[in-house]
Amino acid sequence: MAEEKVSNTGDVDSQVVNPWEVTAKDGGKIDYDKLIEKFGCQRLGDDIVQRVERLTGRPAHVFLRRGVFFAHRDFDEILDLYERGQKFYLYTGRGLSSEALHLGHLVPFMFTKYLQDAFKVPLVIQLTDDEKCMWKNLAVEESKRLARENARDIIACGFDITRTFIFSDFNYLGGAFYENMVKVANCVTFNKVVGIFGFTPEDHIGKISFPPVQAVPSFPSSFPHIFSDKNNKVNNDLRCLIPCAIDQDPYFRMTRDVAPRIGYQKPSLIESSFFPALQNGKMSASDPNSAIYVTDSLKDIKNKVNRYAFSGGQDSIENHRKFGANLEVDIPIKYLSFFLDDDAELEHIKEEYGSGRMLTGQVKARLIEVLSELVERHRKARALVTDEMVDAFMAVRPLPYMFS
Amino acid sequence: MAEEKVSNTGDVDSQVVNPWEVTAKDGGKIDYDKLIEKFGCQRLGDDIVQRVERLTGRPAHVFLRRGVFFAHRDFDEILDLYERGQKFYLYTGRGLSSEALHLGHLVPFMFTKYLQDAFKVPLVIQLTDDEKCMWKNLAVEESKRLARENARDIIACGFDITRTFIFSDFNYLGGAFYENMVKVANCVTFNKVVGIFGFTPEDHIGKISFPPVQAVPSFPSSFPHIFSDKNNKVNNDLRCLIPCAIDQDPYFRMTRDVAPRIGYQKPSLIESSFFPALQNGKMSASDPNSAIYVTDSLKDIKNKVNRYAFSGGQDSIENHRKFGANLEVDIPIKYLSFFLDDDAELEHIKEEYGSGRMLTGQVKARLIEVLSELVERHRKARALVTDEMVDAFMAVRPLPYMFS
Repeated sequence: MAEEKVSNTGDVDSQVVNPWEVTAKDGGKIDYDKLIEKFGCQRLGDDIVQRVERLTGRPAHVFLRRGVFFAHRDFDEILDLYERGQKFYLYTGRGLSSEALHLGHLVPFMFTKYLQDAFKVPLVIQLTDDEKCMWKNLAVEESKRLARENARDIIACGFDITRTFIFSDFNYLGGAFYENMVKVANCVTFNKVVGIFGFTPEDHIGKISFPPVQAVPSFPSSFPHIFSDKNNKVNNDLRCLIPCAIDQDPYFRMTRDVAPRIGYQKPSLIESSFFPALQNGKMSASDPNSAIYVTDSLKDIKNKVNRYAFSGGQDSIENHRKFGANLEVDIPIKYLSFFLDDDAELEHIKEEYGSGRMLTGQVKARLIEVLSELVERHRKARALVTDEMVDAFMAVRPLPYMFS
Repeated sequence: MAEEKVSNTGDVDSQVVNPWEVTAKDGGKIDYDKLIEKFGCQRLGDDIVQRVERLTGRPAHVFLRRGVFFAHRDFDEILDLYERGQKFYLYTGRGLSSEALHLGHLVPFMFTKYLQDAFKVPLVIQLTDDEKCMWKNLAVEESKRLARENARDIIACGFDITRTFIFSDFNYLGGAFYENMVKVANCVTFNKVVGIFGFTPEDHIGKISFPPVQAVPSFPSSFPHIFSDKNNKVNNDLRCLIPCAIDQDPYFRMTRDVAPRIGYQKPSLIESSFFPALQNGKMSASDPNSAIYVTDSLKDIKNKVNRYAFSGGQDSIENHRKFGANLEVDIPIKYLSFFLDDDAELEHIKEEYGSGRMLTGQVKARLIEVLSELVERHRKARALVTDEMVDAFMAVRPLPYMFS
């Protein structure tokens, strides 16, 4: 297998994509094809989508069949092994970027839940509360509180407690997890993290020491309580599949580079494009009107979509009827592509709207319905998540139904 | 209080002193006065020795009254507080530099045991098994095994189990300890560790992330099981005193620099000179004849002292009788200064030998007796240390007799 490309900060012809910065070319669109090429990952094609449907016996998730998850690393190997009867486990995480999650944050979790249900595999979810202290200088206690709040939102996505372990770094780090961190850290020089993450000598050593923390959940031996057999031995050949947004790729390029050198399997990845801001482009934590939050009221949603959702419709009804909407830049259409499950309805809306027969206001009205239903369902589910359930998901314990 | 000098790698007029390298000026003696000046620590004078005797109501340890522990940082503050009824805790450690400990390794532990007995205070002992993996690329399992072997030797020094917690980083790191690591790491840039430790961009990030691991046992909140009160609150004003060799000073210069910025007390230090090799100079792990090991047989000891201990005696009996021995370079005299407790006998030997009335062979014979007794006592004590005792010292538990 070719060596991983690990010395690329994601600066592709003036577009920057790394875990802390996503800046498009000349303020325009992210060029995902170039990103695939430069990062060295693979395009996730229709052949793989159909194969997933065949192997799992259920329709592919909307995020898969509509190309939200558009790139991968060795996902085909995971499927080869699965086809031969070998299971894997899932690993995803959250960086606690804000108290309330927005819809973009839900994307990897909704998709991970689908993967868990479809493949019937165990899942570990990392809450990087330590990263929040390191990058945002948040107090430890506040960061730990946020981790639990985020856990409630994640649990509300419907994960199966018999197959899911949620942990925060401050609570779980140590033991075999720390041993793996040391093994990884010993294989990565300062020069290398500069190349991968763009760190500088003025960065504090908290940041510099963090990448192994996000790397090691890729290895089953970091979770002996889950992956030990009855002889207390972990099967390190068990493969790991990481669903994440493509800005997290640098961590796992590094992980995949190191894995064979410390006797571990490389994790596989399935990577999504970015969920766009209402105004198009990247969402900003400093502008609450750039995103729909799971805490938004139905009134908030209506107001945000109507006032802020960037429209590809024309500037007058006359022009709109004549030229139709530009679907490429239209946020209501993009959001419906994420969350409107009915393919036929989506195609109908795109056709009507693109030809000018449907107006922006009508599309937005449908989007408001779809998002309201989604947010309302999440709110109800979250209200049912008790402290005891959070404790139960985060308890260090064997998982009774790992593979079944 | 003046800012700590933290940007000095210990390169003092061509002598280099840091945790991984001790090289004297032009191959000669370490200039400890210059080291004190450059590091910015304080000379430990007779006034402090006498004050310790007065406060503890017992004679000062031979390492204290003969200047083996020759420098300090704010030890006088610890004594001021102690005099006013405030206790402190001790922190020392081992870097697991070899399977068998040599006499130089015992020095800080013998001294720490004296301090524990004299002041009746709790003690934490860190075994940096992770450091061994990071610097020597030792396998994790082997490093953990070494940590337990080293713990046996440390326990054999006679520590009080009711006041002593021994931990290895691989076993203990996590929780509040890791939280403190993150707090420290967030205050130290890569540039700063380059200045303090001499790291380079080619060093792996394991090394770069290690200094906080050795820093945080200086803070009581890293040990909530020991220092929490009945309301689960740790008193962070409790002071820490670190007995160590002066090559460890860089870690604690860094720690003292960071402590006030994260709301903690600076640890105090009491620092020793280096225990010399039999050939004079620094001991080398690659030359077993450069040191007396606690595993050496009585025959080994006799052979090593007679064959390898550098003598300040003259090249012929005639010259020796005429000029006497050069005590400044004589290893038997140096070793006796460490381990012959009887001040009157030591003075007598120095006078007789220095004047040429006593011969090298006679001094060596006395040294062999003293070392044999020391090693034999250690061997017997070590043989009594069971696996269960190691477990008991390393158990995460409250200490029943913290201060009494």
